Amino acid sequence: MKAQTKRTLPERETILEQLNWRYAVKKYDPTRKVSEEDWQVIEDAMTLAPSSMGMQPYKFIVVTDQETKEKLRPAAYGQSQITDASHIVIFAYKKTYGDEDAERFIKRIAEVRGQTRESLADYENTVKGAAKKATDGGYIEVWNSRQAYIALGFLIETAALMGIDATPMEGFDPEQFNEILGLTEYSAVAIAAVGYRDTENDWLAPLPKVRMPREVLVERI
Amino acid sequence: MKAQTKRTLPERETILEQLNWRYAVKKYDPTRKVSEEDWQVIEDAMTLAPSSMGMQPYKFIVVTDQETKEKLRPAAYGQSQITDASHIVIFAYKKTYGDEDAERFIKRIAEVRGQTRESLADYENTVKGAAKKATDGGYIEVWNSRQAYIALGFLIETAALMGIDATPMEGFDPEQFNEILGLTEYSAVAIAAVGYRDTENDWLAPLPKVRMPREVLVERI
Repeated sequence: MKAQTKRTLPERETILEQLNWRYAVKKYDPTRKVSEEDWQVIEDAMTLAPSSMGMQPYKFIVVTDQETKEKLRPAAYGQSQITDASHIVIFAYKKTYGDEDAERFIKRIAEVRGQTRESLADYENTVKGAAKKATDGGYIEVWNSRQAYIALGFLIETAALMGIDATPMEGFDPEQFNEILGLTEYSAVAIAAVGYRDTENDWLAPLPKVRMPREVLVERI
Repeated sequence: MKAQTKRTLPERETILEQLNWRYAVKKYDPTRKVSEEDWQVIEDAMTLAPSSMGMQPYKFIVVTDQETKEKLRPAAYGQSQITDASHIVIFAYKKTYGDEDAERFIKRIAEVRGQTRESLADYENTVKGAAKKATDGGYIEVWNSRQAYIALGFLIETAALMGIDATPMEGFDPEQFNEILGLTEYSAVAIAAVGYRDTENDWLAPLPKVRMPREVLVERI
């Protein structure tokens, strides 16, 4: 853990080429599936994404079952990625974060680090206090949902580095998704479709990537 | 653009090793700076991050000026990363998204893709409609701020792949940050400190990374 790798790090140019190669695929090749070996890496990357205080107030629902995809598609305005992509990930944030969530988290820290729960009392209070403040302040859902977007970023970049396509999607009805997926404590906030582009049939594939110029996006002080 | 690279993609193991290597550094080595060459890659990665409809409703403020860092530190509860890290990035989302923002965006698409603005009229209406709906529904700030977290994810993963440390931080007073940075149309929502860990003086450096077990985080359907 945390030890510097002895492997060769990827070249800068490779990272940027892959981030330029990726785009929000509109048409997936339904015949190509992401291998289980590659998928494990994507799941690991999502799991390794950082979150506020380490709380990970979310869940990743991975759908490969075709019947479930068919049920979800109408709730995503009929977009074909839902049924054609190999894997669909629904990012669902926790709608509340109570003392029992904090306790489960602290127990996990104690377990992984071989510490006593007592030695983590200060941190437990900090986590509980922050969650209570966010709950009382009415922004617990906003806070938790933002964290899920870091993991979404990790999914997209990791997939791109492996030459796998991913489409981040917000165009769906969260309530319908929650119902279909049986979510009650969590709420769907974003989707990633993951698979392989159907270059010939995707209108977006040949078009150049559009980004605002750096001087608009970046300010240096 | 979007052409598959002829370079060798990074090995799966390298990606995961680097994501395990990274952690939220508490103590940076103030004597080590990120090279301009490396920094450009990080900026490019943030710029290449996807966002809803491609709108990029945010700004990245990159602070290397020591005096500005000193001013910001008290507004981040005195955390040493603010003054000790090489680069500080403030992710600031746009508080509103009006027709003029949509028009600027559409003009940019037209420019990059060599299209006429007229040919993008449908998309322009879609963007304006979505932004108006979010504004009227009172969630434009939530929506825009979430997009910034994808770019935060890209920054963290890209840095890790290059063996550069990054700490995502939410522990700061946005209003004070906005004032110090002169932000009015944008609001600071997250920070990344970027630099090199001071392993010997960072209490967190030797501790194993804690993540919830996969069976808690991931549900497969």
